[in-house]
Amino acid sequence: MTTIEIVTIGDEILIGEIVDTNSAWLGIELNKKGYTVKHITTVGDEEQDMIEAIETALGRSDVILVTGGLGPTNDDKTIETLSKIFKSPLVVDKATYNKVKIMMENRGIVFNKNNQSQALIPECATIIENKNGTAPATLYERGKSILISMPGVPFEMKAICKDSVFDILESRFPQSCNVHISALVYGIAESMLAERLEEWENNLPKNFHLAYLPNPAKLRLRLSVYDAENKEETTKEIYRLFDMVKDILGDKFLGYEGGNLETDIYNIFKEKEATLSLAESCSGGSIAKRITSISGASGFFNGGIVCYTNAIKENVLGVNGSTLEKYGAVSKEVVEEMAENACRLFKSDYSIAVSGVAGPLGGTTETPVGTVWFGIRTPKKTYSYQKTFGKLREQNVEYATNNALFALLETINIEK
Amino acid sequence: MTTIEIVTIGDEILIGEIVDTNSAWLGIELNKKGYTVKHITTVGDEEQDMIEAIETALGRSDVILVTGGLGPTNDDKTIETLSKIFKSPLVVDKATYNKVKIMMENRGIVFNKNNQSQALIPECATIIENKNGTAPATLYERGKSILISMPGVPFEMKAICKDSVFDILESRFPQSCNVHISALVYGIAESMLAERLEEWENNLPKNFHLAYLPNPAKLRLRLSVYDAENKEETTKEIYRLFDMVKDILGDKFLGYEGGNLETDIYNIFKEKEATLSLAESCSGGSIAKRITSISGASGFFNGGIVCYTNAIKENVLGVNGSTLEKYGAVSKEVVEEMAENACRLFKSDYSIAVSGVAGPLGGTTETPVGTVWFGIRTPKKTYSYQKTFGKLREQNVEYATNNALFALLETINIEK
Repeated sequence: MTTIEIVTIGDEILIGEIVDTNSAWLGIELNKKGYTVKHITTVGDEEQDMIEAIETALGRSDVILVTGGLGPTNDDKTIETLSKIFKSPLVVDKATYNKVKIMMENRGIVFNKNNQSQALIPECATIIENKNGTAPATLYERGKSILISMPGVPFEMKAICKDSVFDILESRFPQSCNVHISALVYGIAESMLAERLEEWENNLPKNFHLAYLPNPAKLRLRLSVYDAENKEETTKEIYRLFDMVKDILGDKFLGYEGGNLETDIYNIFKEKEATLSLAESCSGGSIAKRITSISGASGFFNGGIVCYTNAIKENVLGVNGSTLEKYGAVSKEVVEEMAENACRLFKSDYSIAVSGVAGPLGGTTETPVGTVWFGIRTPKKTYSYQKTFGKLREQNVEYATNNALFALLETINIEK
Repeated sequence: MTTIEIVTIGDEILIGEIVDTNSAWLGIELNKKGYTVKHITTVGDEEQDMIEAIETALGRSDVILVTGGLGPTNDDKTIETLSKIFKSPLVVDKATYNKVKIMMENRGIVFNKNNQSQALIPECATIIENKNGTAPATLYERGKSILISMPGVPFEMKAICKDSVFDILESRFPQSCNVHISALVYGIAESMLAERLEEWENNLPKNFHLAYLPNPAKLRLRLSVYDAENKEETTKEIYRLFDMVKDILGDKFLGYEGGNLETDIYNIFKEKEATLSLAESCSGGSIAKRITSISGASGFFNGGIVCYTNAIKENVLGVNGSTLEKYGAVSKEVVEEMAENACRLFKSDYSIAVSGVAGPLGGTTETPVGTVWFGIRTPKKTYSYQKTFGKLREQNVEYATNNALFALLETINIEK
């Protein structure tokens, strides 16, 4: 098994100024290719910390992927540090120099000594082109291990991996076959689920690893096989094992995680040639954001309204003033009218409506913080569901968004 | 200086199934309290990897914060591993046992052996209550170092930190004063910025660290002082230094990062007692999501419309059909009408309208992917701006969202 270690560099990660999404992306992509990330290490811009982290990584991993610290400014010290670690002096790489010069000129930016510094590369390094930025990636060797240093800017790093790094790995390191499949389970506590699946779990083949991942409003159950002999057979076997879970759990088994819920919705609506609209109150645009994150969303998503006040619910969306007054904005009656009116306003076949109290303010005894109503309008009927979540605003919005997408999928399932 | 190391445990992080947001949150909060995170280490659920990571951490850091691996299921192995590391047998903690039992009963969940296993705690550990979940946090000592193990579920971890962990750290470890202030700069390449600030940078006091953080549609410039003697004085000095940057850069200096743009908008609208609405096309609800992420948004945010098709722009938002036909949806004229109509529809004082091509599809020669128009309606006037971003959908939406929030702030500034 080829072991990979990711080393991310930058004070901005340690102080929480940015979230390290690069490592997650690398984890997904490398696993797909049959490589196993065993360690992720983050250190700041201090040379001694970088040296320690990289030396440790070189001592235990086949491939070390370093991200960050390659910018043109003085706080970027990765290249200098690599020059020390590999005892190789910095020299001007003519090709990089010329490339950066042309790049800057094309952008109308003066090619100054900060850019020039980006062409200084340790003599022993092999250069890997960065088509989207000024800092090239570089490759170093020690014994059987290689180290590749890449920029930390996510889209530059991702493009370099796709253009070159993955090919380099495949040409030099054996790939094993890692299979991960996740199923979604809903409406059952983790401990009870474990109890119901105990016998099944105890009978899993030894190399099938089960993981429980509790998540807002759902539970993810992952079966992983590392170093599988045959991808197709292993995948088939995992589905067979999950079929047994389906039998045990009945409708609590929601299906497989095909990436995410919005992709499932996109596929269903594309197949149905149906259209969707939204009326969001407490979810505040989060559902629209999720739906429109899919390229091609404009093919089925007509639009949505964020109606954050009662006046907007009444005057723009056309919810009855008397319904609002009698039942309150967070109610079965209002959310159903919201769903129906969204379909009318946006001329869509289906709609999702959400109204709730995200908190921390706005709760009452009858309608505490965390109460959320969901309305789903289909060409046949209007459905509504109620859930009570927690006290934290951010979490309630996430719960509400996930549940709204689920509710749509479940409702379509019911009508099948 | 008290050094802190975060160790996150879980295969789900290594395979990219989840992004480690816990570490970023801890980084922010610990820095505020005057503690410095020096390392973040992630390993999977394998015992040997956990032991190595934790032993290394105990050898170099004052405080080790371990997250993850405390669930009731068999894949959670942190507690067993800690029992081995600290050579302390697992014993039933009666208080935890009873607490979990009551918690389960209240939720109508059978208290089974999986939950019971969560009351098995190494004998040497001090228990720290987890009010929001079944797995308690535990504290261990070795020499002058302490290790605290916490659940990986973000809201449980955060609450435990706020309720107990931060107090424990403050009572036992000296706090230094770390000051980080970031300014936002716009419309200048990193290398040119560095050139223009060179003299200023060279004259910075020795303990003032400058970092350049390129980010979608803006550049962040951070000045950090670790172990400052006096917080107020240091803060004042940083602002004085940034005033010099302001003089050098003129209107390219956008201001300070007060957490985030939406907070600035909230504060301005609260002070003005003004209201806001949105008309979003390519940003697809992202701006609404950002605005409504602020608790109290309902005090100034009336609502918004996501008009993802031309028909909705015309029929719901009331954009002139002939304007759409003559200029196309992604145009100065349409975005200005969108902004004006949003104010009318949502009865708001201000509005933001966005129309663009997020991609990857939908671009033309005149309006390539990445083209975005922004309209801002104020009580006085309608403004519009155009930007061209890149080719990646997700990034274009993020750029458009940030730029829209900026455009509103800048427009309000112009009118001052």
